[in-house]
This record gives sequence, C-alpha cells and structure tokens, in this order.
Amino acid sequence: MFQDFKLVDDRPVAIQVKEYVKRLIIKGALQADQKLPSTRELSGLLKVSRNTVIAAYEGLEDDGYTYAIPGKGSYVATMVTRLAEDNGDSVGSSAWQIDWKARMNEYAGSAVELDMMKQGIRAQKGTISFTSIAPDEQLFDLGDVKRAFMDRMAIEGQVLLNYGYAKGYKPLIDYLMRYMENKGVDISGKDMLITSGFTEGFDIVLSALRPYGRRGAAICENPTHHTAIKNLKLQGFEITGIPMERDGIDVEQLEKELQKQTNHFDLAYLTPSYHNPTGIVMSAAKRSAVVKLMMRYQIPVIEDGFNEELRYSGAHIAPIIATAGQGNGVIYIGSFSKVLFPGLRVGWVLADRALINNLESIKRARTIHTSTIDQSILYQYLLNGNFDKYVKKARTEYKRKYELTKACCEAYLPETQLSGDGGLHLFLTFPSKIDTHELLEACTAQGVIFTPGDRFFIQEGEGTNTLRLGFSRVTDENIVQGIQIIGEQVRDLLKGQR
Amino acid sequence: MFQDFKLVDDRPVAIQVKEYVKRLIIKGALQADQKLPSTRELSGLLKVSRNTVIAAYEGLEDDGYTYAIPGKGSYVATMVTRLAEDNGDSVGSSAWQIDWKARMNEYAGSAVELDMMKQGIRAQKGTISFTSIAPDEQLFDLGDVKRAFMDRMAIEGQVLLNYGYAKGYKPLIDYLMRYMENKGVDISGKDMLITSGFTEGFDIVLSALRPYGRRGAAICENPTHHTAIKNLKLQGFEITGIPMERDGIDVEQLEKELQKQTNHFDLAYLTPSYHNPTGIVMSAAKRSAVVKLMMRYQIPVIEDGFNEELRYSGAHIAPIIATAGQGNGVIYIGSFSKVLFPGLRVGWVLADRALINNLESIKRARTIHTSTIDQSILYQYLLNGNFDKYVKKARTEYKRKYELTKACCEAYLPETQLSGDGGLHLFLTFPSKIDTHELLEACTAQGVIFTPGDRFFIQEGEGTNTLRLGFSRVTDENIVQGIQIIGEQVRDLLKGQR
Repeated sequence: MFQDFKLVDDRPVAIQVKEYVKRLIIKGALQADQKLPSTRELSGLLKVSRNTVIAAYEGLEDDGYTYAIPGKGSYVATMVTRLAEDNGDSVGSSAWQIDWKARMNEYAGSAVELDMMKQGIRAQKGTISFTSIAPDEQLFDLGDVKRAFMDRMAIEGQVLLNYGYAKGYKPLIDYLMRYMENKGVDISGKDMLITSGFTEGFDIVLSALRPYGRRGAAICENPTHHTAIKNLKLQGFEITGIPMERDGIDVEQLEKELQKQTNHFDLAYLTPSYHNPTGIVMSAAKRSAVVKLMMRYQIPVIEDGFNEELRYSGAHIAPIIATAGQGNGVIYIGSFSKVLFPGLRVGWVLADRALINNLESIKRARTIHTSTIDQSILYQYLLNGNFDKYVKKARTEYKRKYELTKACCEAYLPETQLSGDGGLHLFLTFPSKIDTHELLEACTAQGVIFTPGDRFFIQEGEGTNTLRLGFSRVTDENIVQGIQIIGEQVRDLLKGQR
Repeated sequence: MFQDFKLVDDRPVAIQVKEYVKRLIIKGALQADQKLPSTRELSGLLKVSRNTVIAAYEGLEDDGYTYAIPGKGSYVATMVTRLAEDNGDSVGSSAWQIDWKARMNEYAGSAVELDMMKQGIRAQKGTISFTSIAPDEQLFDLGDVKRAFMDRMAIEGQVLLNYGYAKGYKPLIDYLMRYMENKGVDISGKDMLITSGFTEGFDIVLSALRPYGRRGAAICENPTHHTAIKNLKLQGFEITGIPMERDGIDVEQLEKELQKQTNHFDLAYLTPSYHNPTGIVMSAAKRSAVVKLMMRYQIPVIEDGFNEELRYSGAHIAPIIATAGQGNGVIYIGSFSKVLFPGLRVGWVLADRALINNLESIKRARTIHTSTIDQSILYQYLLNGNFDKYVKKARTEYKRKYELTKACCEAYLPETQLSGDGGLHLFLTFPSKIDTHELLEACTAQGVIFTPGDRFFIQEGEGTNTLRLGFSRVTDENIVQGIQIIGEQVRDLLKGQR
C-alpha cells in the first residue's frame, strides 16, 4: 500500500495526500478502526514532508474519515458506505436499476429532440464554420472586465458573494431602466426583472402566460429564432408564422390571421431589429401598424431586442415597446449577449409592473436569482464607460466583416437573394431547386459549414432553399474562401440537376 | 434649453452629455432635422470641454440619433418613437391596457402565493434576526476569491466570456466528480449537470419527472425544506410527509405508506444530512434501510446534499447515493451555497447518465448554461486549495455559535425540545399550547424575529408549536440576548394561558 501515490494536479500537496488516503478508506483498502501509519512513516513512504502529512491527517479528522487517540495515533472511522452486494436478503445495490427513459415525460423527451446542439452539425478541425453568431472573443477587452470586477469587489465584495435578490441587482436595474428610457421607452407603470440571459426571460414569460386546459396559440415572424420556436413548443404553444418582407413582417398577412374568427392568440413574439435569421429591420411605419393591430386585438407582444445595438447605418429606430408609449401590452426582453459577452448570463425583462411582480416569484422559484457577480461586473463595466468604447470598436469590426461577407455573396453567389441590415449574420435564399441540406453535405466535404435555414421556419419543409451565414467568428480570408467554395458547390448542384 | 444639464454619476462626462442630448431628442425638445448647437456653443452652455462635446456628438451619430452634414454640423435624425396620443383613429397608445392579472395562469399565481420572500417577515433596523440560514459574509476570504478570478481570467479569459456548455464548465465537472467519488460514490454509469444552484437542479429534475395527465405524487420528510415544498406544489405534486425521529425519517411509517396499494409515488425527496429545518442527520443504519425500501418499490430518490460539509462532530456519513452503490435510483443535488458563497449560483446534479442527458437539454432550453464566471471562480478557488482552509475556518466559527445557541436554548428555553446536529440553525419544538406565530408577534415587538416552523410542514396547521433559529449571521451577544427575550415571551404566553 501507499506505493501508487502521485500528485495529480497543482493543488497543495497536503490536500492531495488527504484525498489519496480518503480514497483508500472509501475503497476499503483501509478498514474501520485500523491504525494509519505514523506521520513520519507516511512522509517517508509518500516522499512528502512530515508537516504535509500532519496537515493531511488533520484534514481527514476534520472531515470525519479518521479519529485520533492522543498519544497513539490516527485511526480509520467507522462509516457505512454502500450496501453489501452479496448479502442474504439479495438486495445488493446493483440490483437497483431504474429505467429512466421510461420515467421521463414528454417535456424531457422533446427537450432533447428540439435541442439543436444535440442534433447540430459537428465541425471538423480546420473547417470554415459560418454556423456561429456569437461575438468574436478576440474583441473582448479583458482588462476592462477585470477592472470592473476588482472595482466592484472592492466596494461590496461580501455583499456580492452572499444571497442577492430575485428581481436583480438594484444598481443594474436602475441603470438599465434609464438605458431603456433613452431608447424612447415610457417607463411609467413598468418594472424590470433581471434574468440569466434572454432565454430564461422568454421561458419564464411563457410559463406565466401559457393557458391551462388547452394548447396556447402564438403568432410570430416566419422564419424566426429557433430557440424561441423550441421554447414555444416545449410550453405547448401552437405557432402561426407570418412571412417576412424586405421591411419586416407582412402586415397584411398578420391582419388576415388576426381577423380569423377561429384564431385567439395568447401572445405574439417579434424581433423588430436585426431579426434572426433574416437580419431584417422592421420599418418605423410597420412598427406603428403592428402596435395598432396588437392593440385592437389585445394580443400581448414579446419583443426580442437581442442585438438592437449592432446597428451599422441608418437612424436609430425605437423598439416597439417605445412605440406603445404608455400602453402596457409589450414585454421587452433585452440582452447584451451578442454585443458584449455571452458568458455573462444577464438579460432583462421590461414590462408592466403587475406582470413583473409575478415573474419575480417564478424567477425565485427557479434559480433564486441571477449570478450577482455577472450582474455586478456588467454594471461596473457600464458605469466605467466601457460599453460605448467597446460597442464602437465592435461595430467598426463587424460592419467591415458584414460588408466583406455581403460583397463575397454578391460576387460568388449571384443566384441568391440576400438579406441582413446588420447584426452578425446574413440570410441567403437560393432558387427553390437548391436544397441547403444537400448543399451543406457537399460543402462539409470541402471543409465549409453553415446553418441550413429550414430550422428557423415554423413548418416542416419550409425554407429548404435558405441558409444563415454567421460571420462574426470567421477570419477575412476564410470568409472569402468559404463563400467561394459554397458558390462552387451550388453550381455543381445546379449542373447535376440539369 | 441646455440649462438643466448636470452630471448624475461618475461615468465619463462625454457619455453623460450624449445621454443628456439623447433625452432631449427622445422627449421631443429637439425636433427631427433640427440643427444641434455647434460643439463650441454647447461646451460653453454645459461648461464642459469642447473635446467632450465632440466625443458626445460622435456617439450620438454612432447610435443613429443624429446625422452630420460635413461643414454644416449635426442634425437630429428622423425617428418614430411613439404613436400620437391624439391621432384621428383614436388608438392612442395609452389606450392599450392589458389586464395582466387576468392573463396569468395558476402557476404564476401560485408562485406568488408560495413565495416566502413576499409573505415573509420584514425586519426593522436593529432587530435581532434568527431568520437567515445564509453564511456569515464576514467569514468570506475575498482575497482568495479575487485571486481565483484573476488566475482563471489570465488562463482563458476570452473563453470564459463567450458561450459555454449547458452541461457545465468541464474542469469543474471533473473536479466535482472526483469530489463525490471521495464521498464514497460509485460514479460508473453516472454523469453530472451543473446548475444555477440547488433550486434550479431540483426544479429541472421535477419538470422532467412529473407525470402528465395526472397529478404527481412525492414522498418526503415532514417537516422539510420549504423551497422543495413550493417547487413540488408548483409542479403539481401531491406531497406525503413522513415524520422525523431523532436519527432521521421514521422508517416504519415510510414503509407503511409505501405498502398502501393506493399509493404510487413518482419520487421521494430526502435531506439525510443536517436536514432543513430539523438539523437532524439520518443514521447510517436508516440510510441502508431507506435505500432498500426505495429499491423494493422502485421509487427514485432526490437527495439534497445542501450542507453536508457543515459537520461539526462524529464520523463522516456517506450520502445515500453512495449507499446505493452501482444502483442508479438516486439523484444527488449538491451545492456549496451554504458552506461557501451563495452569490456564486452553482450547484450540481449527479445521477444516471441517461437522465443527465435529458436534463442537459432542459437546462439548455431554460438558461443555455450557468454563469461561466461563477463556475470558473469556484473551480479555481477549489484548485487553489482555498476550500479546505475556508471550511476549517467556517466550521470552527459556526460550531462555536452552534454550541452557544444550544447552550442559550437549554438555559432560557427549558420547556423546549431541541434538534440540530450541525449546520447553521437549530429547530425548537415547544409545548403544544405555544403558537409560534403568536410568539413571533410578541417577540417582534421586543425586536427579535425567527422563522415559525409551520411553513416547513406539509399540511396546514402542523408544527404550529415549532420554530427555526438560524444563528449564522447573528452576533454572540445578540444570540444570548435574543434567546433570553424569546424565553421571556414564552413564559408570558404560558402565564397568559393559565
């Protein structure tokens, strides 16, 4: 015994010795009431200092794995760990096997089926991948983030590390309320809940509004954000999709659907700015038209503000919640995940005060509160004035890539229709005879991948000739080379079809 | 105009000037296509440097609130913000009022009703409060936490700030798997999901296992953790409670309930170590007995390991999941929130691999992933060997307070029955004629508050003569004084009842 000890990582040696002996006890190599080697012996056997062994033995006693008899030494404590595998009444623990697949409900099943990451495309090393619309981490100003953390810890470190509030970190809420006010939002009668990113905010809102006893009904742009489709389905909503036009949702179609006697929509989900996946910005005129329609039919609107900040040109367009003025029918969900740091899981829900009051209790029941460290880093980062500086830098860089990607598509994919006014991706529509899953297969073989567009559509079989091109994390030469390759594969497919 | 400008916080002046002008535009004080004052003029009016104004004007243009005409100056951009309140077709936005209370479902309603924070006791300033079982933040070793953050940021800051994985931060998972193995757990066939604390882990497990089409049935200790009761109810479970004995759950009663033909339990929820609220540790013998019973009736066990680490005496007792050996019927949910920092919202679910695979997809659908900053700080803190050092310090301090509290109860509350073998609280049972809500009212008037025990019981009207005394955040003299006061009030109540 004690021959197989080795340091496994760079934790203090005393801790590694303690864990090593724990294992011997757990495995039964050291029996209850057995005497441990003296500290001198063990230090010799393990080739570590005696003080190290003394510290390790103290730790073992603290954790209740051993007991000391003064003047005699340390002994292994008696502790039942597992059931005997072979005891008379034949209930050895290995006998206990539950068929979990059979125990899990349809929600758990659908969560996997609808999980794009699990059904997703795996990129080989060296592949040019247009699948991500996450920010380019090379742009991150780590120094400013570190400073924000250290500044905040110095001010109230102990508070940050203890429990916070379900509603969110007060200074951040105050900051974001003013931030939204500066976008033209009338905040009277409204309140804010901080969530762990957009996704949690959206899921909490759905769980509060989905009807019981019947399936919910939601109306949204088609195509739209696949996570929104997933969560709507998981919460049991039937989804009606409205086609997109160059300047946003087709308002006539929207009105037609709303007029139908048979339709009673519980809510609408809209992404007016840099819509995912089309990248289209809804015109100011359409925003007013949409608000008037939703008002007439009294349908709550969940507005996704996910990358409003990534505006490269044109005048600022106020979010729908601003257009609604004092009206309380819009639930705005914001996040800086795309423009700043996705790793900081912070989003916010801005809505009617009565609604927020309930959402706060749901939030508490689910996660108690969002990471205070994340919230306080974000707050101090904003307060230090880093946001404007960073966004300016990010916009310049992304705008350049956006224009390069656009130019390459126009040059190498003349047969496709492009959309995307900003953000971190472009959306491509090919002639109907091109199946982008076939195209993906062909491109993957050439070391290029992208996201087929059909998964953003409501109905199976829609958008099979579309794809989303995320450029934020692709280098300039890979953008050029990748789109060239896609172009070649498109022409091969078209040839093959002649 | 421009008379009311003042610096509101310590953000860079240029940003505050920019926001100030934004407001004037949003409010309509500056109209579309109106020319802004020259940078020289405005710097005079606002008494800030001209360069500040130049930077502010650049920012306004970047954000699309203004446009520049070379050689002429900056002009306000045209942007629709809100609907006219008084336009012909009489759909002024204030007309849009949704009755949210009517739109919200029973889940949203119950979330508020069952929200202890909303129904909770408000402490006046200067009150001696025994209501908290959160750790004492004075013990936090901020220096080690800061170092952990800086160390990790230096190694992979950019990775930490971009998207992570739903399953969790890999180095932390590996660390915790070994940590659980050292508690005697057989990890073969098992896997781990990192969650935003115990609460999210518990809620995700329930949402995966609650039956559809009928109400779920859960069995647990009575009393038990009120958050668990809340989430079970919110997920539609009927709860059967089994009384506690000095050494844990009443196994005979448990067997009686399991035997009943009419009972088909979907799951059991148990807290074998430092049970909340009684603080009782389930004996090793009972752990084996419970595992055998659950095995016989094939009932999945959710084991709450919430403050296993706060052991003050006696031998280490392996968690139930260790007792179950290779059996896959136990779902262990762990957290360091009580022993380390609640602000770091990190917990873990250790269970059968097939189950974790589904829970991972549910986690992704709800919050994408747990804060990587929180996870990496915790990981590096553990790796740096701070945990053992801190727990040693915390145990010593809490053990002292625990013994002081116990001694005071024995001295000043002779008529009560005490329980609590460790952790951050004691549980008191008074003669049945004492109503602890009445007692709380009397004590509140004397500046002392605690948590009445009835809210930890399954049925209305149970445990009305019990209370929980959390001592972790109360000073020594307040512990003495507070318990003295409670004692006096008890005797007054008893007198009054004669």
